[in-house]
Amino acid sequence: MTKERLYLYDTTLRDGQQTQGVQFSTSDKQAIAAVLDELGVDYIEGGWPGANPTDSEFFDNAPKTRATMTAFGMTKRAGRSAENDEVLAGVLNAQTPAVCIVGKTHDFHVDTALGITLEENLDNIRASIAHIVAQGREALFDAEHFFDGWKANPAYALDCCVTAYKAGARWVVLCDTNGGALPAEVAEATAAVIAAGVPGDHVGIHTHNDTEHAVANSLAAVDAGARQVQGTLNGLGERCGNANLTTLIPTLLLKEPYSCQFETGVTPEALTGLSRASRLLDDILNRVPTKQAAYVGSSAFAHKAGLHASAIAKDPTTYEHIDPALVGNTRIIPMSNQAGQSNLRERLKGAGIEVEPGDPALARILDRIKAQESAGFAYDTAQASFELLAREELGTLPAFFDVERYRVISERRRNARGEIVVESEAVVTVSIRGEPRTSYYKNEHASDLSDDGPVNALWQALKSDLGPYQAMIDDMKLVDFKVRITNGGTEAVTRVIIDYQDGAGHRWATVGVSANIVDAAFDALHEGIVWKLLRDEAMA
Amino acid sequence: MTKERLYLYDTTLRDGQQTQGVQFSTSDKQAIAAVLDELGVDYIEGGWPGANPTDSEFFDNAPKTRATMTAFGMTKRAGRSAENDEVLAGVLNAQTPAVCIVGKTHDFHVDTALGITLEENLDNIRASIAHIVAQGREALFDAEHFFDGWKANPAYALDCCVTAYKAGARWVVLCDTNGGALPAEVAEATAAVIAAGVPGDHVGIHTHNDTEHAVANSLAAVDAGARQVQGTLNGLGERCGNANLTTLIPTLLLKEPYSCQFETGVTPEALTGLSRASRLLDDILNRVPTKQAAYVGSSAFAHKAGLHASAIAKDPTTYEHIDPALVGNTRIIPMSNQAGQSNLRERLKGAGIEVEPGDPALARILDRIKAQESAGFAYDTAQASFELLAREELGTLPAFFDVERYRVISERRRNARGEIVVESEAVVTVSIRGEPRTSYYKNEHASDLSDDGPVNALWQALKSDLGPYQAMIDDMKLVDFKVRITNGGTEAVTRVIIDYQDGAGHRWATVGVSANIVDAAFDALHEGIVWKLLRDEAMA
Repeated sequence: MTKERLYLYDTTLRDGQQTQGVQFSTSDKQAIAAVLDELGVDYIEGGWPGANPTDSEFFDNAPKTRATMTAFGMTKRAGRSAENDEVLAGVLNAQTPAVCIVGKTHDFHVDTALGITLEENLDNIRASIAHIVAQGREALFDAEHFFDGWKANPAYALDCCVTAYKAGARWVVLCDTNGGALPAEVAEATAAVIAAGVPGDHVGIHTHNDTEHAVANSLAAVDAGARQVQGTLNGLGERCGNANLTTLIPTLLLKEPYSCQFETGVTPEALTGLSRASRLLDDILNRVPTKQAAYVGSSAFAHKAGLHASAIAKDPTTYEHIDPALVGNTRIIPMSNQAGQSNLRERLKGAGIEVEPGDPALARILDRIKAQESAGFAYDTAQASFELLAREELGTLPAFFDVERYRVISERRRNARGEIVVESEAVVTVSIRGEPRTSYYKNEHASDLSDDGPVNALWQALKSDLGPYQAMIDDMKLVDFKVRITNGGTEAVTRVIIDYQDGAGHRWATVGVSANIVDAAFDALHEGIVWKLLRDEAMA
Repeated sequence: MTKERLYLYDTTLRDGQQTQGVQFSTSDKQAIAAVLDELGVDYIEGGWPGANPTDSEFFDNAPKTRATMTAFGMTKRAGRSAENDEVLAGVLNAQTPAVCIVGKTHDFHVDTALGITLEENLDNIRASIAHIVAQGREALFDAEHFFDGWKANPAYALDCCVTAYKAGARWVVLCDTNGGALPAEVAEATAAVIAAGVPGDHVGIHTHNDTEHAVANSLAAVDAGARQVQGTLNGLGERCGNANLTTLIPTLLLKEPYSCQFETGVTPEALTGLSRASRLLDDILNRVPTKQAAYVGSSAFAHKAGLHASAIAKDPTTYEHIDPALVGNTRIIPMSNQAGQSNLRERLKGAGIEVEPGDPALARILDRIKAQESAGFAYDTAQASFELLAREELGTLPAFFDVERYRVISERRRNARGEIVVESEAVVTVSIRGEPRTSYYKNEHASDLSDDGPVNALWQALKSDLGPYQAMIDDMKLVDFKVRITNGGTEAVTRVIIDYQDGAGHRWATVGVSANIVDAAFDALHEGIVWKLLRDEAMA
């Protein structure tokens, strides 16, 4: 059976830029374009040349991509020719092989926002598309508010689409601009466009996630005959975001009826890079990855329920809708208070620790975890602390160094000039092979923990002189620090979870619990270092 | 036109507990149950009594709710009667009016996971449901892996559902346990269940978000005739989460064809509390709210694109699918605080502060809040800090006392007996009417902050000698303490939110932000005391 070609159009660099809190630099855009191209999308919409300096600069230095680089703009204004519209000229000047222009299709907007007649708007669409085609470019018409327009005045909305197609648009893209459409209406309206004369292989779909239907609406349009899907990596975009290509791509490649029916530019090999691509984007934007993201989230294949975890150990298909390796993700069996020995062995195996079934250490580890959890610890994310605990019970944890004492001071006072200053200082004494070593640190400004308080002072002191181990911990950075008051037995205690990263980009996390926040953080820091020494096979 | 009743079943406290990184305390569960009940869901699934200590403790102290409190468990095991199954007995012992039990419907799982015959599994379903009904409880059958089962062996999957219904189940809940189903198959399978003899008003739907279709699949089942929808607040849940009730509720109430067709237990008034409910859950769990969440996210009505923002100013319907006020959310338009002034007056009025429209202090307060928020402050829950800020700009904040300096020490060392001890001590100097007063506190054990660390030491010192104000603060207790690393301008900073309670049970909250956690906490403590003095009308 020959498959139909389905085209993927990425707008991360244009609509994704409308995400609140996201601001791309030109080099961010170049890095993201490379990620998208490696993944195998067909079109990369790079931005609106002329609309802002970053977009113009990106097109001035547009990377060479296999994907068709596309510039975004809008239809010419009324009262001038397409040739004389300087906004449209700015877009064409970017010299991209494809140009996508947004135009009105909802009569209310033609009237309210543009203040022109319906016929003038049709003229603008026709003339703009024809002008792009005349320049030898591939033209796309972005039918703004199409689904709302179709509900208000179906004949006019369809007329706009057909006008664009007849003027030479390669694609007529139906946009749910406000994000309020539901799948049934998307299917019906898409079918109406095809029935009105725009062939399905010239129809695209562009949705937003304001009711969590961006993915479902995209597939409803494909079901109805559309053959181009627009979206963004990680669902970036205005308000609640655009259709998430990171979800749509694996669904189209792995799920029926899509997998048998369609071919895209994404190969099965590229699909295994999907989780990495998703995390790369978060890295570039310095965002915390969404754990629960479909397919690529770190929790997407985490089996916490006890019944699930024991069945997974027998056969992963019992509780997994796909094999996580297909999208480059991994299974996680977190320990929770319902855990049993089979989950435990699975999780240890994941950490490279093989234990025979029935080993009495397993029961001891479970007891320790249960006791620790009821004291307020949490090992779901603090994998490094879990491993250290297990190794302690298994007798495979080397003794690297002991902490003898610490003392930390935070102070707010007026300095000699009468200004208020806040300072922290710490002293830590460790003992390595019987030799005591004392380190001191005083800080007045934020450093790598971005906290000039007592925890950072302790961290700076602790890591400043570990003698033979110093070289192994020099590349450690604290990247996140979470504090929560929780129940430890009958008392409330403070739980601190700290995330670390090394020079090679590897991340790990530890947990500390105490009625004293500083003491909880110190325990977590201590374990963070021990885990790094263990992984790097330091000599005890 | 009379509307059909559609039932909402919340499983935040059971399936939501399977979220990686989420661990409820009993008091968390009670607080969440209150939020759900106020919202108006019909059922609250409280957990699995007997499966873990927290769930058992929650049912031992189950809150009185309007919603039907429901216990979760599983069908009896083969080879014993329902009466003699101690796991089922543990569930029934919770004495809830409704009991939901999960059972297999996929032949592969009956064989692989249970290792019993298909007929034995049907017996287990029949006998378990009949036993629950015989105890005078409402019985729900949770048809695990129903959609996968229906694809593999449709006759058997349907047989399981019909067996449960005939045995007396009020609801047969179709579960997409692995989260891999797509809307068309959900619709087809749901219709098949109804055609097989389970009336639609006895059919429920329970979906997961592994392909971002949890909401769409839920609505597909409703379209096919199901009349109970299960989900969680904020889409918590195993792996990628459950169907998000925070999205489903407004869609059902505000969007066609649902709004005209169905009635739920959620009133339009309760719907305006939806955004607050969503943030409350995040507060309880100390999670960062998802900005892009549909309907309730802080970005859900943020209009960043220039073209959108200018059209919104003319008519909000141009780029909004609903009025944000319907779900208690607010529009955000960068660079325009005209809309902000009326909201601000409303919020001040709520705090008993009347300000005339056009008062120039309103613009100053908005500017201060904007600057503070971009420095990392958050005033959503820290109402007391918001009031102090506003009173400062309005010139109605008395000067009670000044803080001259503080110094706090935390230490871990060995005592004379060689035992490890952890201690904190603090010195605070305040000035009251020009008179300096210095207080000292040293602690070695947890006290009312449940933190024997530096913050509690500062609190104990600060509140131990405030001279003329002492009597007014003696009944103040710290009841919660939340710490979060957040962005303040270009740097990460620490935000501390502290909740207080007085002898009469009144609660208030303040916020402090600094690169030093101790300093942030101290600022919050200081404001907590000032707010109490202000409320009790202390003389400045």
